[in-house]
Amino acid sequence: MRVIADLCVVPLGTGVSVSSYVAEAEKILKKRGLSPRLHAYGTNLEGEWEEVMDGIREVHERLHQMGVPRITSNMRFGTRTDREQTGADKIRSVEEKM
Amino acid sequence: MRVIADLCVVPLGTGVSVSSYVAEAEKILKKRGLSPRLHAYGTNLEGEWEEVMDGIREVHERLHQMGVPRITSNMRFGTRTDREQTGADKIRSVEEKM
Amino acid sequence: MRVIADLCVVPLGTGVSVSSYVAEAEKILKKRGLSPRLHAYGTNLEGEWEEVMDGIREVHERLHQMGVPRITSNMRFGTRTDREQTGADKIRSVEEKM
Amino acid sequence: MRVIADLCVVPLGTGVSVSSYVAEAEKILKKRGLSPRLHAYGTNLEGEWEEVMDGIREVHERLHQMGVPRITSNMRFGTRTDREQTGADKIRSVEEKM
Repeated sequence: MRVIADLCVVPLGTGVSVSSYVAEAEKILKKRGLSPRLHAYGTNLEGEWEEVMDGIREVHERLHQMGVPRITSNMRFGTRTDREQTGADKIRSVEEKM
Repeated sequence: MRVIADLCVVPLGTGVSVSSYVAEAEKILKKRGLSPRLHAYGTNLEGEWEEVMDGIREVHERLHQMGVPRITSNMRFGTRTDREQTGADKIRSVEEKM
Repeated sequence: MRVIADLCVVPLGTGVSVSSYVAEAEKILKKRGLSPRLHAYGTNLEGEWEEVMDGIREVHERLHQMGVPRITSNMRFGTRTDREQTGADKIRSVEEKM
Repeated sequence: MRVIADLCVVPLGTGVSVSSYVAEAEKILKKRGLSPRLHAYGTNLEGEWEEVMDGIREVHERLHQMGVPRITSNMRFGTRTDREQTGADKIRSVEEKM
């Protein structure tokens, strides 16, 4: 089951600046082949269900190892059985109608 | 790694009423021991990381089996290493300060 | 236009404990008649669009006044034109099917 | 109070394809000067609090006028008092650390 997701990771207890943790998350997701595409309030990613969830787990584990005591994440994730679709397909589909 | 989560599952392509699918999701999460607590815009759940993610995967798979062609979910999920905390602890902690 | 919402407010730069800020948010939403119902990962609220959005604005402004330098919130919100529905109706609709 | 947000609008009761509604939302947000930047699971936007919330309200109202009976949206939104920051600043801050 393929999943297209959008993840926003928020480290708590480490001050107002979170960009170094977000950068680390991007590196992990990229290394795992989940095609992260960073935007201003999260990152798109996609892959097989297990791969995506395991990647996000590594992000939480790694940030805790870096000293973050608490993490609250927010994720949108979609699956469909009617047809195959990538994140790039979704964007193209909207842009054609604009 | 324990996780406290809040899940909102949205079936697409099945009309405006989604309650029968949400009810099925609750049953699956309950059966799996994830302590779902339904509210008006989602459900709280908690457990070990793998258990929680596997439960949500079963929800998506089951809804697709029921004929839902597309599902878009939204989830908040938190982990912490500084201390153990349940969802009930979180509510109590806020209520004591009100 | 009535809206049913679910709000999760996350103060950054104030340490790992956020419950005192969440308690303050609940008080504001209650005082404004938005019927907040706290759960383990946010709070349900409902009302007219303007009332809801103005209430959430007051929450952000008040938390900043309390010294929170940065706030990241997450909200689900729904509107419908086919019929009137409260948050309690939504819960009842699911529970009848369980 | 400036706000950086990320909005994901989900029309219900109109079938599996939602791109025409998302395209309409983009047009509204652009026309209002909220600098929407579409990605695969939502759109970034930013502006003064009232402008952002009024823009999102117009999106819901317009989609209902187009015949969508039910809409469930999901939004992340952040405010800060410690310094000024745009969405582009947030991305740059992460990319510098990668």
